[in-house]
Amino acid sequence: MGQFRVLIDANDEKGLVYKISTIFYEYGLNILSNNEFVDKINGKFFMRSVVEGDIDANNLKKSLTNLLPISSNIDVIKPAKKNIVIMATKEMHALGDILIRHEAGELDANVLGVISNYSELESLVNKFDIPFMTISHVDLNRDEHEEKILDYLSTLKDIDYIVLAKYMRILTPKFVEAYKDKIINIHHSFLPAFIGANPYKQAYERGVKIIGATAHFVNNNLDEGPIISQEVIHVDHAYSWRDMQQSGRNVEKIVLSHALKLALEDRIFVYANKSVIF
Amino acid sequence: MGQFRVLIDANDEKGLVYKISTIFYEYGLNILSNNEFVDKINGKFFMRSVVEGDIDANNLKKSLTNLLPISSNIDVIKPAKKNIVIMATKEMHALGDILIRHEAGELDANVLGVISNYSELESLVNKFDIPFMTISHVDLNRDEHEEKILDYLSTLKDIDYIVLAKYMRILTPKFVEAYKDKIINIHHSFLPAFIGANPYKQAYERGVKIIGATAHFVNNNLDEGPIISQEVIHVDHAYSWRDMQQSGRNVEKIVLSHALKLALEDRIFVYANKSVIF
Amino acid sequence: MGQFRVLIDANDEKGLVYKISTIFYEYGLNILSNNEFVDKINGKFFMRSVVEGDIDANNLKKSLTNLLPISSNIDVIKPAKKNIVIMATKEMHALGDILIRHEAGELDANVLGVISNYSELESLVNKFDIPFMTISHVDLNRDEHEEKILDYLSTLKDIDYIVLAKYMRILTPKFVEAYKDKIINIHHSFLPAFIGANPYKQAYERGVKIIGATAHFVNNNLDEGPIISQEVIHVDHAYSWRDMQQSGRNVEKIVLSHALKLALEDRIFVYANKSVIF
Amino acid sequence: MGQFRVLIDANDEKGLVYKISTIFYEYGLNILSNNEFVDKINGKFFMRSVVEGDIDANNLKKSLTNLLPISSNIDVIKPAKKNIVIMATKEMHALGDILIRHEAGELDANVLGVISNYSELESLVNKFDIPFMTISHVDLNRDEHEEKILDYLSTLKDIDYIVLAKYMRILTPKFVEAYKDKIINIHHSFLPAFIGANPYKQAYERGVKIIGATAHFVNNNLDEGPIISQEVIHVDHAYSWRDMQQSGRNVEKIVLSHALKLALEDRIFVYANKSVIF
Repeated sequence: MGQFRVLIDANDEKGLVYKISTIFYEYGLNILSNNEFVDKINGKFFMRSVVEGDIDANNLKKSLTNLLPISSNIDVIKPAKKNIVIMATKEMHALGDILIRHEAGELDANVLGVISNYSELESLVNKFDIPFMTISHVDLNRDEHEEKILDYLSTLKDIDYIVLAKYMRILTPKFVEAYKDKIINIHHSFLPAFIGANPYKQAYERGVKIIGATAHFVNNNLDEGPIISQEVIHVDHAYSWRDMQQSGRNVEKIVLSHALKLALEDRIFVYANKSVIF
Repeated sequence: MGQFRVLIDANDEKGLVYKISTIFYEYGLNILSNNEFVDKINGKFFMRSVVEGDIDANNLKKSLTNLLPISSNIDVIKPAKKNIVIMATKEMHALGDILIRHEAGELDANVLGVISNYSELESLVNKFDIPFMTISHVDLNRDEHEEKILDYLSTLKDIDYIVLAKYMRILTPKFVEAYKDKIINIHHSFLPAFIGANPYKQAYERGVKIIGATAHFVNNNLDEGPIISQEVIHVDHAYSWRDMQQSGRNVEKIVLSHALKLALEDRIFVYANKSVIF
Repeated sequence: MGQFRVLIDANDEKGLVYKISTIFYEYGLNILSNNEFVDKINGKFFMRSVVEGDIDANNLKKSLTNLLPISSNIDVIKPAKKNIVIMATKEMHALGDILIRHEAGELDANVLGVISNYSELESLVNKFDIPFMTISHVDLNRDEHEEKILDYLSTLKDIDYIVLAKYMRILTPKFVEAYKDKIINIHHSFLPAFIGANPYKQAYERGVKIIGATAHFVNNNLDEGPIISQEVIHVDHAYSWRDMQQSGRNVEKIVLSHALKLALEDRIFVYANKSVIF
Repeated sequence: MGQFRVLIDANDEKGLVYKISTIFYEYGLNILSNNEFVDKINGKFFMRSVVEGDIDANNLKKSLTNLLPISSNIDVIKPAKKNIVIMATKEMHALGDILIRHEAGELDANVLGVISNYSELESLVNKFDIPFMTISHVDLNRDEHEEKILDYLSTLKDIDYIVLAKYMRILTPKFVEAYKDKIINIHHSFLPAFIGANPYKQAYERGVKIIGATAHFVNNNLDEGPIISQEVIHVDHAYSWRDMQQSGRNVEKIVLSHALKLALEDRIFVYANKSVIF
């Protein structure tokens, strides 16, 4: 008896649920949980089921593929540790939160390595027996620097997600394309407010009463990829932008770790620059 | 073409979704939204579907009843205004919020009347051309007082919900039994903290940093019925209990109106002294 | 014995608190509450004290004025009902919330009147025996329309605040200048995200997971005045922009009423396009 | 030029602020921030000022002591690292969050050591070069076990705070008395709801829609000490108690670390089983 996550997105049409549940029934599957969403405007159907049964995942996928419209995306996933790489710069909080969760067994992931353009975080990462790679950007142009990172990444097998845990450099379209829908970033503002550099300074200047953080997939436009998770905290006039930054870190790390957890549990569908989260 | 809400709770068993979706398919129904929940511990299955089609609600219900286990509860509801009665005492905020929402067309409900044991709220209610009935408890014991209320209620047709909008008296088991799972109360604390009288004073004495409000169905044990909705706000040492009370009112009215909306949209299942909310 | 609110903002310098507390002491005042804030970057000092004593407000103000630097702003206010005018368009929730609070005695204000460019809200306002004035913008250019509103406002005595309770038209610099730091607006987004028209549609398109509302003073730049209060709620992929709009209304009305309350209690200082809130 | 935190609590009487600010003025102090609170019911005055000047802390304290009523408590503190000991059992999240913050330099503290009644957390603590002491309770009665802990603690110099980072055993009055107002605990519920063992199971059984965590000082009554900080998150019917526990950990660690930070910055006054937090 095994558990499987069945992920389906399809153009919406009458009978989809009927067809899918017929196959589940024929395979003798027990449905442990089931989430559906229909986007009526775009005519899209999304489903995530966790099923239990004595089956072969490939066979189930084949049966679903045969019955559903050809444009459908179908996945049958046996839960297993996913491989992640973390990229950071100098700040410790977001990286540290992931490392502690990993150590505590909270994350269903192998951390293949941590990459930074500085060496400040090396001693922290080494404590956890995780490879740390300093790839400095000094004296390199953006393409040359990324080439080195991509080279290193190519030595790692089967990367499921790259987590930008306060990696403070912008990635080129080439890099993003190479890991499409696999790069999760934490932006230190409540997007789309304060896109770009030093959002806490921007927030301070604007005199906002709430600050936040946004975890999102990275696409080619800065801070404009599909949002996965957001959270906020209240601030007041007594906060300097440094105070906002310090308080904001609590939000950043929680939001990023939450988004990573959603990804590791195969709970995120991406389409139309948005996310559907089950 | 009509829209219908299909509500099903059943003992969980393999094939339920298959059977239900087969019938939906045979009736040519379009599924607009679908929520499912399986409580594995208690072996219970819950489903709320909004379907669209050119059908007869009774026939659909009959077909589902024939196919599903005999212990199942099945409802096929054509959305329509529900009839509500509001009970209050002297405070205006929760009642006022419902009246404004009703006036704005936000609530799918007819307000049949407002009952109070005092007359303070009469002029407010009269503004909205809604019947107001003062049923004083003075010189009556609890049973006599409730008898008068029940008499009045019995003159009103088809009450779907009784909303206790800060009605400050405890109802007897007899009253509760007469409107089982139909009485929605707002308790001015984050239950189960501060059960009973003057929760803000209790909260002040305890020095809490957060206060809240809880909307729940009323059962025979004071403040122990199934919780529908809860919300909180932060307070600090500078709050007197009167300040907590005043700030708490914002939470109370939002939580109560939210719970009422959930009820009017047939989104609440009650079982095991809990609620499942879709 | 009377209570007074003493409001002081001044260029920060050593000895300010000493001087102020000396005068309080000489006047035999009892300090009921005291808030201070020093903005070190801009070198500004802010203070709000609630004091109790048998004094003449003008004398106290004069003594403070004599002792403090000439650039200081000093106010000694005897708490009293403030005069407000509400402007709205067609939506009922924000206006209704203020009317109910006013009726309940929660707001220390006289509502002099409600102005709308449509007549939809007239019957609601009339219920509360408050003057309602329809000033249509049809066939008028912006200046002509505002001229009519300004004419009406000039017939009202001593307006303390104009509350834009979902007034859906942009005010000209001339109008704003006439009531500088006296116009409170509710913007239906978490500013500075989604400035301008239909923020809920913008939020929906962007796929955000949180929406909010912002109360702010109106200045000459659209949605860029000093922020008074903000609040947010969580949404998910299942929310259409209409759902966001409906849920957002709960936040809008609470935030606007909260900002109004802060203003009526003389708790807001405005400077550098920000607010200090005590 | 040094910075000092001046903490005063006193029986409220007219002229306190005048007297204090006179002394600040005489010492030529610059007031960087100032918080005051008067509890009118109990007649208590609280003040925390951060001042800057070229002074001797003891002299300032002496001057304040001479001028203020004899019952006053006066502290003049030069900010410095405080000494903390952490006690834990097996869970990693709260301890790990403190260790990472400590490593990141966020906490103004020396971690003298970590004590646990199990050895599971030893390898984590050792990574950070912090002494770890397993003091098993097996085969010991409560007094004997605590005796061993107290013995170990007595070898550590100048403990400012003992942080119970999910230490799952109840402390005796003797232990609590030995470190009065110095023991900070995280309780995994929104107190006073769900006092005692396994609050998440209790929360699940009750069907609450919000769960939380509470940081508080420990006194002799289980979970009834002065509350420092509380935070909550929303849950729904789909959460098992294990899900609540897992989600709750995020809240627990943030709340505990926040409370610890408040303590390290001398922001907490305790009285009447409550806290005043500046």
